[in-house]
Amino acid sequence: MKAIGFKTSLPISEADSFILFDKEIPVPANRELLVKVQAISVNPVDFKVRQNSLKDKVQETPKIIGWDATGIVEAVGETVSLFKKGDMVFYAGDITKDGCNQEYQLIDERIVGIAPKNISIEQAVAMPLTSLTAWEILFDRMRLSAEKDKGKSILIIGGAGGMGSVAIQLAKKLLGLTVIATASRPETIDWCKKMGADHVVNHRNLVESVKNAGFEQVDLILDFVDVNQYWEAFVALIKPQGRIGSISAAAQPVNLQQLKSKSVSFHWELMFTRSTFQADDMIEQHTILNNIAGLLDDGTIQSTLHTTVHGFSVEHLKEAHRLLESGTAIGKMVIAF
Amino acid sequence: MKAIGFKTSLPISEADSFILFDKEIPVPANRELLVKVQAISVNPVDFKVRQNSLKDKVQETPKIIGWDATGIVEAVGETVSLFKKGDMVFYAGDITKDGCNQEYQLIDERIVGIAPKNISIEQAVAMPLTSLTAWEILFDRMRLSAEKDKGKSILIIGGAGGMGSVAIQLAKKLLGLTVIATASRPETIDWCKKMGADHVVNHRNLVESVKNAGFEQVDLILDFVDVNQYWEAFVALIKPQGRIGSISAAAQPVNLQQLKSKSVSFHWELMFTRSTFQADDMIEQHTILNNIAGLLDDGTIQSTLHTTVHGFSVEHLKEAHRLLESGTAIGKMVIAF
Repeated sequence: MKAIGFKTSLPISEADSFILFDKEIPVPANRELLVKVQAISVNPVDFKVRQNSLKDKVQETPKIIGWDATGIVEAVGETVSLFKKGDMVFYAGDITKDGCNQEYQLIDERIVGIAPKNISIEQAVAMPLTSLTAWEILFDRMRLSAEKDKGKSILIIGGAGGMGSVAIQLAKKLLGLTVIATASRPETIDWCKKMGADHVVNHRNLVESVKNAGFEQVDLILDFVDVNQYWEAFVALIKPQGRIGSISAAAQPVNLQQLKSKSVSFHWELMFTRSTFQADDMIEQHTILNNIAGLLDDGTIQSTLHTTVHGFSVEHLKEAHRLLESGTAIGKMVIAF
Repeated sequence: MKAIGFKTSLPISEADSFILFDKEIPVPANRELLVKVQAISVNPVDFKVRQNSLKDKVQETPKIIGWDATGIVEAVGETVSLFKKGDMVFYAGDITKDGCNQEYQLIDERIVGIAPKNISIEQAVAMPLTSLTAWEILFDRMRLSAEKDKGKSILIIGGAGGMGSVAIQLAKKLLGLTVIATASRPETIDWCKKMGADHVVNHRNLVESVKNAGFEQVDLILDFVDVNQYWEAFVALIKPQGRIGSISAAAQPVNLQQLKSKSVSFHWELMFTRSTFQADDMIEQHTILNNIAGLLDDGTIQSTLHTTVHGFSVEHLKEAHRLLESGTAIGKMVIAF
């Protein structure tokens, strides 16, 4: 079978930043499914791992990345109980294992959902990683609920990206929050509004932009860009008893004390935590993906698919990485096999 | 009426670190109650405010501190609806206003509870500030519930102090958590066990102590001592998807990034946040105090009272501050008027 990977970390412009190679189709064991991949999507984590994981190292067998796939179950391990051969599934995956940039992939059934039925596979594959992340941060980390939090305001930094696009929808449709999203170009502003944002503000002069939209402070903040860059703005903008969630990074130490007088909570979210640490509740990701499939099927939320390219090739994968590295991607880019 | 305060920040050993003075009995307005104070208790915040609030400053009228009182409602403001003259109440208070180190105090009814009926006023007055704090951090900040969190492990740093003593009980009795508390002297170890701790460990070599008690990692951490001092231990000890709560301080910046791979949440709690910012849900403190009174009355939790002195005097207040400043206080010290 065909797989695409890299032997060392190279700029995407280099010929060998991705290489096509042959690999044997693996055999599922225990709770693993063997999935024939039909489409994948790309996320910022992809290029970060490509750029950094094999820096100054060369490995013989190319490293396979990619964490968003839909496909069909071809075979199952001996203790699989949630799926059977022939099931259409979608999933993000496990960063400690081979990714989905290959024609067949092994994947633990506990982090796989039944694919939505009423939308295309391209629309479906845009969703797993981002919706798992947004769901986990809103419901598992922040523990928000419509009952307690309906009507509160949420500021989403990076509204038009893959993460922002689904977070806007979940915040709006499942929690009844008032959503203020950041975007600065006409096409990203339009996209945020299409996703359901009530207000779209410029991320430059964030405090002032939010005030101009009519909010002195906000109850909740979701950061998909950079903690350090926006820290002082977050300190100013967050309401007493507010919550700040982030999936980005804080490369520099932060003055946590600044949040104390307001009794603010700070929540990290990494979609790979449950699988990396083989958490007892890893199967929650199965449940979340099934919930997301239901919400897509009944039209509560819409796919964040923006662009599809057809054909699983080195050139298409490079194109996708180039787009994400530019920081200008809107919604999700999908590669249909 | 009699009040005790200070005109400038002085070491407790100085004659004028507290001074007795006369003051007119104030008149309640709006939602204020006028309470005839019958007993007070002291908390670490008292000596921190005494030591720091009037550093290199002298004010004409002495500053009145103290944030734990029980007493009887003597008069009510025109829009008071929760209490009437003659009600026995208990409360912590509002750090932006005069405290309870005086014979009569004005207090917003939204942060006052009906005093417990089946225990002494000394037992009652030990509870408001610490139980409000512990309740808010467990239920409002971390959003824990017995339904979701029963059986999880919680490490409580500073188990034998006023905060630890009530946090152990709420964690155990209301949430069904397994409680590991820190204490190092025989009398503090005994006290933690009396409060219901399942395990008591030494705070020195914390990671090793917790492991020796049978826990590689814990689901939850409550810090009542110092964030910076224990940061590396917290990073090592917290389970993936865990929660760390603190009421102490982080004088130095922290490397928040260290908590990311485990998707950990960090929660600040300051009992004064709701009243300082006049939060919309300030009345929650009325509800919490009524809940606490109920739990004390039906014996679910016990008062953390350790020592009572009789008589509202400068000497007794100094004695209480000296004890807290020593860092060796067990449970709560109460001054009955």
